[in-house]
Order: sequence, then structure tokens, then C-alpha cells
Amino acid sequence: MNPIYLDNNATTRVAPEVVDEMLPYFSKFYGNPSSMYNFGGNAGMKIKQARAKVAELIGALPEEIVFTACGTESDNTALWAALRANPLKRHIITSAVEHPAVKNPAEYLSRNGYHITFVPVDHLGRLDLDFFHQHLSDDTAIVSFMWANNETGVIFPVEQIAEKVKSKGAVFHTDAVQAAGKLHINMAENGIDMLSLSGHKLHAPKGVGVLYVRKGTKFAPFMMGGHQEAGRRGGTENVASIIGIGKAAELAAEKMEEENTKIKALRDRLEFELIRRIPNAIINGDCQNRLPNTTSIAFEYVEGEAILLMLDEHNICASSGSACTSGSLEPSHVLRAMDVPFTAAHGSIRFSLSRYNTAEEIDFVIEKLPPVIERLRRMSPFWGQKTACQTTAIK
Amino acid sequence: MNPIYLDNNATTRVAPEVVDEMLPYFSKFYGNPSSMYNFGGNAGMKIKQARAKVAELIGALPEEIVFTACGTESDNTALWAALRANPLKRHIITSAVEHPAVKNPAEYLSRNGYHITFVPVDHLGRLDLDFFHQHLSDDTAIVSFMWANNETGVIFPVEQIAEKVKSKGAVFHTDAVQAAGKLHINMAENGIDMLSLSGHKLHAPKGVGVLYVRKGTKFAPFMMGGHQEAGRRGGTENVASIIGIGKAAELAAEKMEEENTKIKALRDRLEFELIRRIPNAIINGDCQNRLPNTTSIAFEYVEGEAILLMLDEHNICASSGSACTSGSLEPSHVLRAMDVPFTAAHGSIRFSLSRYNTAEEIDFVIEKLPPVIERLRRMSPFWGQKTACQTTAIK
Repeated sequence: MNPIYLDNNATTRVAPEVVDEMLPYFSKFYGNPSSMYNFGGNAGMKIKQARAKVAELIGALPEEIVFTACGTESDNTALWAALRANPLKRHIITSAVEHPAVKNPAEYLSRNGYHITFVPVDHLGRLDLDFFHQHLSDDTAIVSFMWANNETGVIFPVEQIAEKVKSKGAVFHTDAVQAAGKLHINMAENGIDMLSLSGHKLHAPKGVGVLYVRKGTKFAPFMMGGHQEAGRRGGTENVASIIGIGKAAELAAEKMEEENTKIKALRDRLEFELIRRIPNAIINGDCQNRLPNTTSIAFEYVEGEAILLMLDEHNICASSGSACTSGSLEPSHVLRAMDVPFTAAHGSIRFSLSRYNTAEEIDFVIEKLPPVIERLRRMSPFWGQKTACQTTAIK
Repeated sequence: MNPIYLDNNATTRVAPEVVDEMLPYFSKFYGNPSSMYNFGGNAGMKIKQARAKVAELIGALPEEIVFTACGTESDNTALWAALRANPLKRHIITSAVEHPAVKNPAEYLSRNGYHITFVPVDHLGRLDLDFFHQHLSDDTAIVSFMWANNETGVIFPVEQIAEKVKSKGAVFHTDAVQAAGKLHINMAENGIDMLSLSGHKLHAPKGVGVLYVRKGTKFAPFMMGGHQEAGRRGGTENVASIIGIGKAAELAAEKMEEENTKIKALRDRLEFELIRRIPNAIINGDCQNRLPNTTSIAFEYVEGEAILLMLDEHNICASSGSACTSGSLEPSHVLRAMDVPFTAAHGSIRFSLSRYNTAEEIDFVIEKLPPVIERLRRMSPFWGQKTACQTTAIK
């Protein structure tokens, strides 16, 4: 039985159309695209086509697309490239709610000769732009803000910020891993210097990513080796997966508008019904400015992990935070940065939808989740205290 | 028509058994292994099995296996890990014939505060061990020598070197990308600290690699992000490809002995017949101590690129050097380091075989190549001069 998969910000199903395009490049056309002979050249030609398709999705030039192994590599590359290309600047600005692929290298750099400013967010997950403007300086080498948050879906005004950053002579990078394929991105119309994408958040396979590097941006490679990707990223091209992300980008571009309408309607229905049926359920983040597929809901006074385990019994997949930070019992750094109260942060569940979700699946979750929360709250000492207090108050 | 693919040191055909194992993990079991629910856990279990299979191939413990995106990432990681974990040491030793994935970061580091010693090789591609011993010092952070050379197949005595390096308190890394699956590797019996593997040289797909890190070795991550690979490598696990490299390692372990006998016999026959039929053809590198699948032959007084183009007309794939350094008209840095004369280095062709090559294919090359060389030499001004001189000398 297929699961009801509502964890598409963690990873997505590879589109069958994508697998079909990739398959011949494993055992049939397996040549190395750097080779002289035609057998390798075929692979090279397919990579060229894939590069053009990815460029098309984000309004970029093909030569601005660098293929990497994942979103994490793209993010790491952006940071190191900017620092190596601007060695005299020692200041980095990022936000308090970035993905670990930006947050962790930034923290490493803060212990190794760089000064890092983490811009805070408010209780709705919105960036403190005043704080940012106060800290942007001539010493800032790079500013990196995600386009949309993986946990709450909250969108940052990155296009507007890019202009400000460039006026100070710094590089602006955005982790658009969650935004790509969901939001309109046109690099020809904005001033963003570098942008990260991940294949597996976009119905391409795991193990392939993209770093957009605007033409003319000073750059130094992170992965050093062969001459691949015009000298910007060493390592034999991951031919099949690059073909896969090309096809996935093509599908995303074709279907984005139609899908977003459908997915958004499903997400809204899920959210509305859960909030309506479950007391003390609160949406985390700015509902006015959010990805169409994501909702993070705090079910106060219960444990997120317990909810997930009980949903799993119904074959429903969701998440208590980023998959990349799981394994810890602490609430996510995103919800903590938003100052979500302890009792809400611990009971927060992220649902993230994709083109493959159906109305029937959403109805099933709407039916199954309220009794799960009710049952868990009956066992929760905090909930007991809370209702006792409320009862007292009403009296 | 399938090509006669004799460029298996550049990349290999993905074994159909490998593709079969990978396929379900694209569109069916696509969960993120870091997830709480069973759907992700299945992927996690398969990764655990793959880790055990790779460990088995090289006599390692499963927890010593770190999955990466490619051999280049493994090599980069080894260098940076050793330097970050031993920040007071500023000296690196490597060889003059390493793959660009080691050579290029080493050259970068030489411009950024580190002192690098490139150990030379002799005319047969053998490491100058006296030179190495003279330069190994208490300041040496890491020594990195490849196990077997990608262009000539020449094997370095890395197990013996590892002992020496450890006695000086440095880390020893080896790029075993070409050795794995071809030579007996047992990490339980040697002192090597880190070892790089690449999937696509081993009939697994492109886009997956391995870094072996001996238990207890001080380590710091290169790719920084999520908690994956026990905190040693951020980025969502490339589930399908990791399953693929696990299967490929299993196949390699099962078949290594049988295959090496067969492949070596084909290589020896190819080499013997070409040398016998073509005048002024010289084997590059130490024939006594070489990978069983590789031969690099210098056809004096012709252009390697021209040979490759004419072989391509017969649908034969070979290489004039490493695919990772192609695109340049210079002879490879490996042949230059061996002091192969200009007229020989320029006409050097590498043939590298795999389990999929047949006796019929080898016979076809033996038939087609001699007239190609003859035809090209007839057009070569150098060859004309040479034969004129020889004729004069004989007179």
C-alpha cells in the first residue's frame, strides 16, 4: 500500500517521466561526457539540453547553471565561492532560520576568522529587515537568505533584499531549494547573484543539485578536480541525474500554475479542517506569504514525535521539522527563532504536499488526525493542567 | 550498435543487476531515510545494507564508510578533513601523478598557506620513495598517494607507505578509485587512514562515491549540513545510488578473481599484438606492477587525438589520458612527470577493460588499429624525418 505522503519538503517522489528519461543513461549510453568519442558526446549533448531546461525554469542563461550533487553542496559552494573570491571581506550575514546547509558552514566560519550576523525573525517567521540593514556593511562578503523556509513555508523578500546587498558590493545568495517549482523565479528580472536548487525536492532524484551563478560573479570552486562545469565544479558529471533534473525542471515549468492552484486548495482545506476540528491548533508562520504546499501546525500540549508515530500507523507521512535536523528531541531552530512557545513548538507538525496528493488523501488525514490529538492530549499532563485552568477561569 | 568500450578507467557501464536494485527507490520507495516513519526507515535499512557490502569489499567496518557524491568529493574531503583536524600542521605530501581531484586542491592549498611536496616518479611511473622519506616531517599533516594510476595503471606501495606515515604522526590517504574491485584491499590488514572510492569506476552509477575513514581518525566534515553519515557528510542520502554502489561492491567482491584473470588475459593479448604489429609502440609505465585492466601505449610520431578519432570511426572508445584532464592539447601531467619523450607522450593511448569486454572486441581492435597508425604516420612530418634518419643510419 502506498503511503499518504505529506512530507514533500523532505523529499519527493521521482516523477515516472523523469525515471524514463534517465534509464538509458545507466547501462546503455554510459559514456563519460568528457570523452573524445561520439559515445561520450551523446551524454554531453543531453547534459546541454538539461542545462537549458533548468535555466528555462528560473529565467537564467544555460551557462549560469552549475550542476552539483545536492542542495547542501550548492549552499556550501556559494558561501566558499564568495569568500574565496573576496578574500579581504570577513563578514557574513544570514538568517536565524536557514537550513543546516547554510547555518552549519556559517557557524564553522564564525569559529574560523569570520564574523557572522544571524538576522532574527519575528513570531510569524518574517525577517527583521531593519536589523539586517543596520548590519550590512562594506566588510560584508556575502548575504545568504533562503527564498522560502522549509519548515513553515514563509517566503522572504529576496529579490528586494538582493538590490540592497548589491548596492553595498556584497554577493547575495539564496537557498531556493523549497521555492523552485513552486514560486515564479526569473533571474533575468532580479539581482540575485547565486541561487541553490535541489533535484529531489522537485521530483528529480536525490544526489543532484544546481547552483545558479550569475554571469560575471566572481567565483572560485568548492569541489576541486577536473575541468567539468566550465572549471566551476570538479567530478565526473552525474549524467543520468542531470538528465533527470532537466526533465523535472521542464515538468515543473509546464505544470507550476495548474499544480499550485490544486495543491494550494488541498493544503488550505487540510489546514482549515484541522484548525476547525482540533482545539488549540495554531498555524506557525505568516499565512499571507507562504509556499502553496506547506503548513506547519502546532498542536499544543502534545509531543510531535508521538503524533508522527500514530500517523504512521495510518500510513500517513509527515514531519516534526526538517528531516535534516531530525534525530534530536529539541524543537527545531526555526520554531525557536520564531519564539513559538515550548508547548506549541514541541507539538508542531509540518505537512508538505505535492502534485501526487489527492483530495481523498487529505480527507483521510482530516478524519484520522483529530482523534490522534485527542487521545494524546488525554495522556498529556500539560493538557490536563491547561483544561483544569481553563475550567477554573470559566467558572 | 554498441561501441567497443575500452575506456573503463574513465567510467563504466552500470551493471544491469545494479540498476535493478536501484529502480524501486526512485518512484516507489522514495522516502527520506532521515524520516521518522517506516516509509523512510525502509530506505535507511537499505543504506545500512549497502554500507555493509562496501565495507566487505575493502575489509572495513560499516561505520568506517562515508558515502559521498563522487571520488572527487572523497579526495577533497580527505584533504580538508586532515587539515582541519590537525590545524597546527602546514605540510602536505602527494605525488606528481595524482588525479586532479587531489592535485588541484593541493595546488590551491599551496597558494593559501600550506607547503606542498609533490613526490616525483621515475620513467616507469614508480614513486621516488627516497625523496618521499626525505620530505616526510613532523609538520606533515597528510600524505596522499593514489593506489593505482588512472592513466598507466601503475600501482604504488601504499600499504608499506602508510606504516611510515603513521610513524611520523601524519594521516595517510589513498585515492583507490582505480584500484577498488581490481586489487585485493583489506583495510583490517593495513594502516591506511582514509581511502577514496568512486561508484562509476566500479559498475555503479555516476554521482556516488565513498570515503573510508578509519575508526579513531580525527575528522572534520567538508560538506557541512545535516546530521547525515553520522555527522561526517551533510546532504540527503542519495538512496538509489548508494544502494547501487552496495550492489556493485557485492558483485566486484564475488567476481574479482575470475574477472581479473579474464580481463588481464584480454589486456595482455591486446598489448602483445599491438606491440608486435606496430613498430615504435612502447608501453608507458611499470609492466610488472600494474592494474590488470589497463595499458597505456605510446605510438611514436602520431597524434593521440587523431588516433582516437579514427578509432571512433570503428566505434572503438579509448582515451588519450584522463577524461578529467581532456580538453587540453598538452600531454597528460602523468606522462610528463614520467619524462616520456614528447613524440611518444603525444601519441599515447590508454585502453582500459572491464568485465563486459570480449575476445572478439579485442581481436577487432588488433585488426583495426595497426592500419590507423600506419596511415597517420604516413601523414606525419616527424615520422618521415625519423625513417629518413633511420635509413641514413642503416646505410
